[in-house]
Amino acid sequence: MAAVVDACQLGTGFYFQRLIEEPRSSSWAKNCSFKWLSKGFLSKPILKSSPLPFHGGMSNVQKKKGFHVLSPNISSPSTAVESLEAWDDEYDGVIINPQSLPSSANAFASALRASLSHWKFKGKKGVWLQILQEQSDLVPIAIQEGFNYHHAESGYVMLTYWIPDEPCLLPASPSHQIGVAGFVINDKKQVLVVKEKCPCRCSGFWKLPTGYINKSEDIFDGAIREVKEETGVDTIFLEMVAFRHAHLVAFETSDLLFVCMLKPLSYEITIDEKEIEDAKWMPIDELLGQPFYQEDHMSKKAIEICIAAYENRYSGFIANQLVSKFDGQLSYLYYDESNQI
Amino acid sequence: MAAVVDACQLGTGFYFQRLIEEPRSSSWAKNCSFKWLSKGFLSKPILKSSPLPFHGGMSNVQKKKGFHVLSPNISSPSTAVESLEAWDDEYDGVIINPQSLPSSANAFASALRASLSHWKFKGKKGVWLQILQEQSDLVPIAIQEGFNYHHAESGYVMLTYWIPDEPCLLPASPSHQIGVAGFVINDKKQVLVVKEKCPCRCSGFWKLPTGYINKSEDIFDGAIREVKEETGVDTIFLEMVAFRHAHLVAFETSDLLFVCMLKPLSYEITIDEKEIEDAKWMPIDELLGQPFYQEDHMSKKAIEICIAAYENRYSGFIANQLVSKFDGQLSYLYYDESNQI
Repeated sequence: MAAVVDACQLGTGFYFQRLIEEPRSSSWAKNCSFKWLSKGFLSKPILKSSPLPFHGGMSNVQKKKGFHVLSPNISSPSTAVESLEAWDDEYDGVIINPQSLPSSANAFASALRASLSHWKFKGKKGVWLQILQEQSDLVPIAIQEGFNYHHAESGYVMLTYWIPDEPCLLPASPSHQIGVAGFVINDKKQVLVVKEKCPCRCSGFWKLPTGYINKSEDIFDGAIREVKEETGVDTIFLEMVAFRHAHLVAFETSDLLFVCMLKPLSYEITIDEKEIEDAKWMPIDELLGQPFYQEDHMSKKAIEICIAAYENRYSGFIANQLVSKFDGQLSYLYYDESNQI
Repeated sequence: MAAVVDACQLGTGFYFQRLIEEPRSSSWAKNCSFKWLSKGFLSKPILKSSPLPFHGGMSNVQKKKGFHVLSPNISSPSTAVESLEAWDDEYDGVIINPQSLPSSANAFASALRASLSHWKFKGKKGVWLQILQEQSDLVPIAIQEGFNYHHAESGYVMLTYWIPDEPCLLPASPSHQIGVAGFVINDKKQVLVVKEKCPCRCSGFWKLPTGYINKSEDIFDGAIREVKEETGVDTIFLEMVAFRHAHLVAFETSDLLFVCMLKPLSYEITIDEKEIEDAKWMPIDELLGQPFYQEDHMSKKAIEICIAAYENRYSGFIANQLVSKFDGQLSYLYYDESNQI
C-alpha cells in the first residue's frame, strides 16, 4: 500500500480559499505530486462541508492575507508591482493567486509576462493559474502567453505552464468516472430490476439499478443511493463482488463500474419517474433468461458472480474504514475479510 | 452488472473527428448518458490508435462533411446563416461543431445567440460547446452568453449550457484519479521497496513503488509499468488484493488506489534517477518494522493483506477480459476466480 504510505504529507500542501470557501491544494511536480495526488486522504482540504475531523498535518494551517497557507512551505508573494501574487509549491512550482488577478486584460497580460520571466529566472518549473469564471476574458491572454488548459469545472478553468526545457511532469487531470450497480435479492430469490426510460436499446430489457457516484461519495453509499432513487427500496451494503474497467468513454475518459451486493431493508417499489420506466422483483432465472445475457459474456459473468455471492459460494470485498498517520483522516480500504488475515 | 447491460448502445452515440483524429462522443442527458458514460466499452470512439477491433454498433458509421456520424441519429446541420453548425444528440441535446466556429469573435457572439434562441424554441436541453485552444478568444463570449465550464484538457475546454428551467441533468466531468501500488516479493521473502526523491516526509522511509495509471491504461499494466520505471524490475500481474478510496484530493478530485501483487521476472535494480532516491529488496519484517507502519493502520493493513496473499492465505481479484454484446469490445472484469463460480 505504498501509495498510502509514501505520500507527500500535508505539510507539503498549500491551500487557498476560493470564493466558495473551498480551499484547493497544490503539490504539483509529477515526481512527487502524482503520488501525492494518489493519496487524497493525505491532503484533505479544509472543506467547511467536510464530514471529517480537522487533524494532523493541517493543524499548522495559518491564515494569511485571506489564504490558508501551510507553513513552513510559504514564500512571500512577490512585491514587484508588475508581478502577479503567487506562492511557491513544494516542487519548485508556482501557484498564482486567482483572487488577485488584475481586472484589466492589459494589466494581466503585462503582469503575467513579467511574472513568467521572473519565475524562469528563479528556475521555477510548473506554474498553476486558476481563472475564475467571472474573469474568463483573461483566458485567451494566458493561452497567448503559452499556458495550456489543465482541467475545468463549473466556476473556473485551471491552466498550466511548464517552464523547464524538459518533459512536463505536472499531473494529469482526473481521468475516471465511477459507476455502481446494485444487486438486491430477496428471500424468494427475486432480484430487484429496472427498465430504463431512455430511447436506446438499454430500455428494452430488465437490468440492475445503476448510476454514478456523486462527488466525494463512497462506492457503497452510491450503490445504496442509486437503488433507493430508482426503486424506492432501502438497502444496506454487504460487499463489492466485482468491477469492470472500461476505456475511451465519452471524451476519452475511462470508467470503473463496481458491482455491489446489497441487502434489502424494504420491498415496496416506488420508481423514479424521470429515469425509470418500470421496476420489479424478478426471479433470477427470468433475469438471466433474457436473450441479452446469452450474448453478453461480461454481463452474464457479473450476474453469475452475484448469484454465487448470494449462495455463499463467493466472497468479494468489504469496506473497512481505517485511519492514516499522516492526517488522522479516515478512508475506506476494500478487501476480502473472509480470508485469513 | 446492470451498467454493463443497460447502456445506451452505440447507435445512440455521435462521433466527430477532431484535428488529432480522435472522435468524441455525445450522449448527454443524465437520464441516459450518466449511465451510458458508465459504459465506455459501449461507446468506444473510433480511435486510429485504438488497439480494439471495430465492431458492432459502430458498423453503421457514415462519413459526412468530414465527420463520423452515426446514422440514424443525425439531424442535418442548421443552414441558417447566423446559426452555428450543430447536431442533435440522443437526449434532446445539441453538440456544436467545434471545427466550424466563426473565427471572428463578433460573428461567433451573434451566431451563438441566434443558435441558443433557435434551440430554446425547439425545446432542446443540453448544449455542448467544445472550444479548441487556438480559438480561446471565444471562451469569454460563451461565458457571457451563459455557458459554464464543464471540463478541459490540453488543447480544448468544453462548455455547457442547460436550457430547461429545471435542474441540469448533464453528466459531471471525470472525478477520479487511479493510483497503483506494486507489491513485489522474491523467494527470500524480500519486498521490492523504494525511497522517493522528494522533499516531503514520504522520502524518509522505504515503501512500495507507486504511481498513476496512464490514460486508457489498465490497472495491472499500470502497476507493472510503475515498478519497471522506478526500479527496473520486470514483473507479471498476479492479483489485485485491495484498494483504497479517498476523497478531496487536489482540486476536490477523489482517488482510488489499487494494490497489486506482482511476480518478479528479474531482480537487478536500476532506479529512475528523476523520481527515486534508492531502491532495494528488503525483508518483510524490516519493511513493517519501520515506525511509520506502527502508526498508520491503513498502510499496515494493506501490507498485511499482501503478505497473506503471498502466503496463500488470501485471494484478491484477477482481471478477466470479456466481450460485451453491444460493441464486441473487450473490457476487463476484476473478480476472485478462486471462488466456486
